[in-house]
Amino acid sequence: MVYGGAATGKRVMTSSSSPGVSLMAEGISYIAGANLPCLIVNVQRGGPGLGTIQPSQADYFQAVKGTAHGDFHMIVLAPSSVQEMYDFVFDGFDLAFKYRVPVMMLSDGIIGQMMERVTMDRQRPRWSAEEIVTISGEWAAVGGGHNIVTSLEMDSAVMERRNEALQQRYGVIVRDEVRLEEVQVDDAEYVIVAFGSSARIASETVELARAEGLKVGLLRPITLWPFPTERIGVLAHKAKGFLVAELNAGQMVEDVRLAAGRDVPVHHYGRMGGMIYSPEEILAELKRLM
Amino acid sequence: MVYGGAATGKRVMTSSSSPGVSLMAEGISYIAGANLPCLIVNVQRGGPGLGTIQPSQADYFQAVKGTAHGDFHMIVLAPSSVQEMYDFVFDGFDLAFKYRVPVMMLSDGIIGQMMERVTMDRQRPRWSAEEIVTISGEWAAVGGGHNIVTSLEMDSAVMERRNEALQQRYGVIVRDEVRLEEVQVDDAEYVIVAFGSSARIASETVELARAEGLKVGLLRPITLWPFPTERIGVLAHKAKGFLVAELNAGQMVEDVRLAAGRDVPVHHYGRMGGMIYSPEEILAELKRLM
Amino acid sequence: MVYGGAATGKRVMTSSSSPGVSLMAEGISYIAGANLPCLIVNVQRGGPGLGTIQPSQADYFQAVKGTAHGDFHMIVLAPSSVQEMYDFVFDGFDLAFKYRVPVMMLSDGIIGQMMERVTMDRQRPRWSAEEIVTISGEWAAVGGGHNIVTSLEMDSAVMERRNEALQQRYGVIVRDEVRLEEVQVDDAEYVIVAFGSSARIASETVELARAEGLKVGLLRPITLWPFPTERIGVLAHKAKGFLVAELNAGQMVEDVRLAAGRDVPVHHYGRMGGMIYSPEEILAELKRLM
Amino acid sequence: MVYGGAATGKRVMTSSSSPGVSLMAEGISYIAGANLPCLIVNVQRGGPGLGTIQPSQADYFQAVKGTAHGDFHMIVLAPSSVQEMYDFVFDGFDLAFKYRVPVMMLSDGIIGQMMERVTMDRQRPRWSAEEIVTISGEWAAVGGGHNIVTSLEMDSAVMERRNEALQQRYGVIVRDEVRLEEVQVDDAEYVIVAFGSSARIASETVELARAEGLKVGLLRPITLWPFPTERIGVLAHKAKGFLVAELNAGQMVEDVRLAAGRDVPVHHYGRMGGMIYSPEEILAELKRLM
Repeated sequence: MVYGGAATGKRVMTSSSSPGVSLMAEGISYIAGANLPCLIVNVQRGGPGLGTIQPSQADYFQAVKGTAHGDFHMIVLAPSSVQEMYDFVFDGFDLAFKYRVPVMMLSDGIIGQMMERVTMDRQRPRWSAEEIVTISGEWAAVGGGHNIVTSLEMDSAVMERRNEALQQRYGVIVRDEVRLEEVQVDDAEYVIVAFGSSARIASETVELARAEGLKVGLLRPITLWPFPTERIGVLAHKAKGFLVAELNAGQMVEDVRLAAGRDVPVHHYGRMGGMIYSPEEILAELKRLM
Repeated sequence: MVYGGAATGKRVMTSSSSPGVSLMAEGISYIAGANLPCLIVNVQRGGPGLGTIQPSQADYFQAVKGTAHGDFHMIVLAPSSVQEMYDFVFDGFDLAFKYRVPVMMLSDGIIGQMMERVTMDRQRPRWSAEEIVTISGEWAAVGGGHNIVTSLEMDSAVMERRNEALQQRYGVIVRDEVRLEEVQVDDAEYVIVAFGSSARIASETVELARAEGLKVGLLRPITLWPFPTERIGVLAHKAKGFLVAELNAGQMVEDVRLAAGRDVPVHHYGRMGGMIYSPEEILAELKRLM
Repeated sequence: MVYGGAATGKRVMTSSSSPGVSLMAEGISYIAGANLPCLIVNVQRGGPGLGTIQPSQADYFQAVKGTAHGDFHMIVLAPSSVQEMYDFVFDGFDLAFKYRVPVMMLSDGIIGQMMERVTMDRQRPRWSAEEIVTISGEWAAVGGGHNIVTSLEMDSAVMERRNEALQQRYGVIVRDEVRLEEVQVDDAEYVIVAFGSSARIASETVELARAEGLKVGLLRPITLWPFPTERIGVLAHKAKGFLVAELNAGQMVEDVRLAAGRDVPVHHYGRMGGMIYSPEEILAELKRLM
Repeated sequence: MVYGGAATGKRVMTSSSSPGVSLMAEGISYIAGANLPCLIVNVQRGGPGLGTIQPSQADYFQAVKGTAHGDFHMIVLAPSSVQEMYDFVFDGFDLAFKYRVPVMMLSDGIIGQMMERVTMDRQRPRWSAEEIVTISGEWAAVGGGHNIVTSLEMDSAVMERRNEALQQRYGVIVRDEVRLEEVQVDDAEYVIVAFGSSARIASETVELARAEGLKVGLLRPITLWPFPTERIGVLAHKAKGFLVAELNAGQMVEDVRLAAGRDVPVHHYGRMGGMIYSPEEILAELKRLM
């Protein structure tokens, strides 16, 4: 349905939880291959399979690496508040149309079931055809003619050029669209890297640590793809180590390691299957490492 | 169908090409979550979406990282000959039943359409119930009683223990089941890392390079998961650099970087969309790097 | 999953409610085309689409006529009590294996959510290979050899013979497997025809009518396919009319008309979208017709 | 995709062959339940299951009776020439938007692979919003406001009213949209009833029969739903009998029997699995009956 709706030029979104997103894998690759914008919200639950309906962050790899076959990416936004779940719908569509890529909002069962005050000030009417042109630049077939939307191309040489154009666009996204939030990282000896609900929990860990005089900071990737590789690389020259806290068996930790290199130890701390850690648990792990 | 057949204790396999495998994503996560063995063959084509029907290796990430939601792995075997496509069916089932995990044979359009002499000496009758017990150790419900096959568990604490048991099994696989092949790596200054059809092409590059006096070797991961991280780590202390040749935009190169660290440069060389490189092209890239 | 499990020779069943059964349409045609036994339970809800989750009998046509493409039938059993929902699992599998066809139990939201005393005396162990041979007669490949399970046949002449064999088997089912229940039809001037939960309600209508001296009876088809065409044809020569009560817009009424011909009026009385009629409502409609 | 595209108000169509249409069953019910227009082309092949890729008309029941769960109908157009395959795309969309229902063009492997001269004179630009309003009358949300497209309704009483409105619309379609073609039926003693490719073959049978002095005519339903029930009822009072020729095991014959009643014999003549009859074969069957 999303592929069909997106092909008509409308703002189209869907939301599901873990298994439902996996079921969309083939379609997402088609949407990416056809250069269509859309928004997919994944409120992650514990897996694999049906798993639990409790919170998890075990779909990080699925969201940022191997969503489906072929070399493609989604822009992945990780909200850590209800306000961001609201805001990222608008940001998500703006990014999706700007770059004509599928955008995923990777939330989880904590954020998804939380109640918070939200300022809803970004309602906007449907885009006009002119706006779509403005936003997406070269959107085909506005103004007449056939608009062939397809991911099929039987000529390998042409298909390679399509892939190169896609990679080039990804390059611009990697350069321009990284988003992150930092909490007391400037003098931090140890930097926690965490996204979404884990970042919320970890920001309390920072407070607890600072109260004890421990120089701990938090880097929260807001975009999981593009990943804040550069910033982590810079911090790797200053910090003594990283602790990647994520509700899974160790996924984002790979991207942190790729960003940090071997210059500095990068540890993982996680829970699985719907279990959640407390700020104190993360602190205890930090102390163990320090 | 695979999930249903596997749940009865039979050796069940399926094969498809890229998009068809994506369509199975949800089911694969269920199979992994239910601890069932099966064999899935992916003869990769160029993507994303429908793409081309020409060869590609762009489903590496999908096979080894984010196949679907949840923390799970498939053992991934990468054949580089028709003989291996035959042999890995048997090896694949042995591994799938030994560890009760889905196994993927990650082939591509080159290997899948090639004609070669094959020795077919491994035909074997169906496993008896006794053998299944022997192979899989604790396979439930042989001998009577209900055999509940499910990936659902509503209690998060229990689900976490199920995940821990799964991760423990993965630890054994990582320790015991890595397979690789090496060509003249002992004195190599530059090591090409390539799998499947790319490894075939790259082995000719090694010959061409050696003929010119260049100290080039090839490391071919046969298992993509578990990945030969340890061996690459050892080589990283001896070689001046790695060139990862893969028919994609850069995927396995991440695992090589994770294995090698920053001690040594790790480059990527690829083609996309169904295009293939020649041994000479890889050699030219190597010379450029050297 | 059902197709995969059934192909291994096991007793395989699934259950769902209306939309979930539609999603299985293609698979059911494959199962029928591959001559495999299975049991599919449909606990009907109001449609079309997502509809309501209240009771309905609007999937009659889907169950007995156009389940999917191609000329095939399922044996359709319509329980009108919780006891029958239990019993028909066993009867369903016996029929499915005897004729190697998919069997559907067509229930609805009334029967599916009702609580009643049930005698569970038909538990039985798994069938042995010998039993399967006994039950299904010619079940292929027991005793060795490959057992090719497929619905594909590229030669039209062979495919026509396969279809003729299938139709021949259907002929035997139509001759031998019709099941029905009658309540006071012998002297009935008006016969209500109703299945499942509607038959339960209508049997009260018969009591109410008889209490008022009205000669009303009830014919309950237990098998919807094969349909009790012959018996209705006989009654059509005696009764003054039929009233088909079903929770839909008029579906089984067509089969009653085909059975009764124009000799006698056949009326339909229904409710839709999850609404249910009372015995009194049916009686009022009967009086109106009489 | 069709559901998603149709929900944006565009003219959306898809085409497939038998199994592919079955796979859409659930979606079609959703489209019908959400009152959306679309066009679905089924180029029928022999079934059940994968079957053959040769022509068939065995999806008649699926198209006109039990496409999926719930009480809904598609308008079904049966082309018998390549010109009609072209024309019915336009007629189909006009009907779909006029009544906001899914329309099926039920073709087959004969018509689908035939080459004929076609006049392509009905190309037209996209509909404007104004036209859509004009065509569909009450199409919601043109001019602003939210346009909730859904088939879900949890209140059974409301759902029943939605169903009643749907049935009322169907009543108008049955009254106004029946299409048929007749060949020499006025003095016919025997009337062949056939649709699509069978009607083409049967029209030659009429010529052959007339050349031999046999009073044979042909009634071709162009709309299979709504079915030309009334006209067949009229002919049933004049003709001595009907022969329903269809490439299946006997499907449309039921609708002809329902229309004709028992006043006159209604026979079926068919081939299955991709096999086709000649005009002479039908004539031979006619003579046998006469």
